[in-house]
Amino acid sequence: MTSDLDLYPVSRLAAVQEATRRAGLGALLLTPGPDLRYVTGYEALPLERLTCLAVPAAGEPFLMVPRLELAAAEHSPASRLGVEFVPWEETDDPYAHVAKRLGAVATVGLADRMWAMTSLRFRDALPGAEQVLASTVLRGLRMRKSPAEAAALREAGAAIDAVHARVPEFLRAGRTEREVGRDIADAIIAAGHETVDFVIVGSGPNGASPHHELSDRVIEAGEPVVVDIGGRMPSGYCSDSTRVYSVGEPPAAFAAYYEVLRRAQEAACLAVRPGVACEAIDAAAREVIEEAGYGERFIHRTGHGIGLETHEDPYIVAGNAEPLVPGYAFSVEPGIYLPGEHGARIEDIVICGEEGGERVNDRPRELVVV
Amino acid sequence: MTSDLDLYPVSRLAAVQEATRRAGLGALLLTPGPDLRYVTGYEALPLERLTCLAVPAAGEPFLMVPRLELAAAEHSPASRLGVEFVPWEETDDPYAHVAKRLGAVATVGLADRMWAMTSLRFRDALPGAEQVLASTVLRGLRMRKSPAEAAALREAGAAIDAVHARVPEFLRAGRTEREVGRDIADAIIAAGHETVDFVIVGSGPNGASPHHELSDRVIEAGEPVVVDIGGRMPSGYCSDSTRVYSVGEPPAAFAAYYEVLRRAQEAACLAVRPGVACEAIDAAAREVIEEAGYGERFIHRTGHGIGLETHEDPYIVAGNAEPLVPGYAFSVEPGIYLPGEHGARIEDIVICGEEGGERVNDRPRELVVV
Repeated sequence: MTSDLDLYPVSRLAAVQEATRRAGLGALLLTPGPDLRYVTGYEALPLERLTCLAVPAAGEPFLMVPRLELAAAEHSPASRLGVEFVPWEETDDPYAHVAKRLGAVATVGLADRMWAMTSLRFRDALPGAEQVLASTVLRGLRMRKSPAEAAALREAGAAIDAVHARVPEFLRAGRTEREVGRDIADAIIAAGHETVDFVIVGSGPNGASPHHELSDRVIEAGEPVVVDIGGRMPSGYCSDSTRVYSVGEPPAAFAAYYEVLRRAQEAACLAVRPGVACEAIDAAAREVIEEAGYGERFIHRTGHGIGLETHEDPYIVAGNAEPLVPGYAFSVEPGIYLPGEHGARIEDIVICGEEGGERVNDRPRELVVV
Repeated sequence: MTSDLDLYPVSRLAAVQEATRRAGLGALLLTPGPDLRYVTGYEALPLERLTCLAVPAAGEPFLMVPRLELAAAEHSPASRLGVEFVPWEETDDPYAHVAKRLGAVATVGLADRMWAMTSLRFRDALPGAEQVLASTVLRGLRMRKSPAEAAALREAGAAIDAVHARVPEFLRAGRTEREVGRDIADAIIAAGHETVDFVIVGSGPNGASPHHELSDRVIEAGEPVVVDIGGRMPSGYCSDSTRVYSVGEPPAAFAAYYEVLRRAQEAACLAVRPGVACEAIDAAAREVIEEAGYGERFIHRTGHGIGLETHEDPYIVAGNAEPLVPGYAFSVEPGIYLPGEHGARIEDIVICGEEGGERVNDRPRELVVV
């Protein structure tokens, strides 16, 4: 298991502060969520009471923390950072307190997932500060996974692979999607995840709706079933993988386009290498599907970055000309969907290495007939 | 079971639009979360792709929805509302689209939990609109629970009571907090919750940290254990209840202040009636604890509102002079904490009725010796 010390190195805070300065921001304000966890390792509860790491471009960072959460913060990896913890009492105004300590700042970067109930209070407490997103500073750092982060993604990949290996036990004609989904959710936890983030079991026509989740539809013989599942590991890093199963032999029309999809997904994975644009990975998959005449049936982008969030930068989508860099990690998940009939999607998480892409998922990509 | 039709009545949208107009706002912008669910019944996934119900003060509301989520939205209770669904494609700018349809608005109310990555894009897309919180409009509506919402809170209360009834099975000397917590989490789901929101098992000195969660600490004989648990029901409504157990006879010092706490919690519950200030409920509990000499040991507010969120308005805290109104629902959970030794908290959810408070939890409040 990757350790917190490697995943959330103490040196990261100084690097983030330096990046804040270079970006010309006065301070970062990080509330509970992936940005705060990335910088500190602290998985703080998302509460209405303000917890906020303030990272001024110059001066000492500090963590505003409700008195009630002080013990939890002190037991978290944030305690290693040597920043001052500033506890506030139930009847204090913690926003005024942050503003006073920061002094005059022209620009503040807000955690991308900061709630409006928090960001608008910071707007009022810091009326002179323009609000921008913390990702202005953190995006580049978070996208480029460290060796420890890559290892955490590999662990997550192995865990979700172990769940896919068990799907044939759960899937059979006569069961509902929801029944199968419940077994999968249990298996996600049993495989070492801390939380179940999503369980999609799309049988027959439901497989044609990419974000269908679970229903009480009874799975019938001869139906393809799209199983797209993921969770969050104790490390904080996420898994996400899709495979397609068929309960008995699938329709011939399905088998034909499934093979196209398999080649498209393979082509996109093989296209991964440093310097290639994100949109070129999307195009690599799309081209194979378009050539086979299914272009209209591939109705979404090819992938999304993954790390402390299931969906984060970079997005593998037309229009994103950003070149891949070693350490970028993202899904490659083209799909083909025939509304009212069935659909398919194959998804692996890929890490860009110096020489090419490394997939953290390695379950067979052929259709699994159960 | 309360039905979606009762919990999320179709008439609510018109009431919200009228309240938006009366509050002088140009529009509400509701992204996935409790505000959107309250208005539509739609439990949309919180994704980086924009889903947003726009409710202009005048004109037709509409739901911006990613093409991928259209099927899910159409299958949700939002489909009953007769609002236009506006699907957007992967390479569209949905923010510009919302701005164009809204036209010139002077003030927009943002869902309180809208992410900064979304609110700042709306700020840029609607540069003339001052951003305020949607709670400006929704707070008063959401605080006053309808009969159907009260029924949903009673169902949630009965479900978490069923879990507390099983805690003595799980709790014994030699087990860790985490082991006990795992059993409790399973029981929360088995009792009908859709999600486990939190499981606090604070044994011995950990009971003195109100927001301690779970640890690998082995529970020993003679130790009091604070068990504070909750989850979300399929209705969307939350449970939250705390009881204290003792594994064998507790220390005499503990038993003495536990009885003080029990009287304090009772006094606060009995103080609930329309017109009484929120802070007076806090004072009713605090007075009993202060008189017994433990005032310094009661380190948090007495309670928080509950509904579609575990913590929402109204807060039962000093300084909140707002009078209770029939339909307000909130926790009453005073605590006494002796750092390094042990602690206790007793919590029920109370709904303010015409004549007084109704507790939705009814497990015994005496110390349960297991």
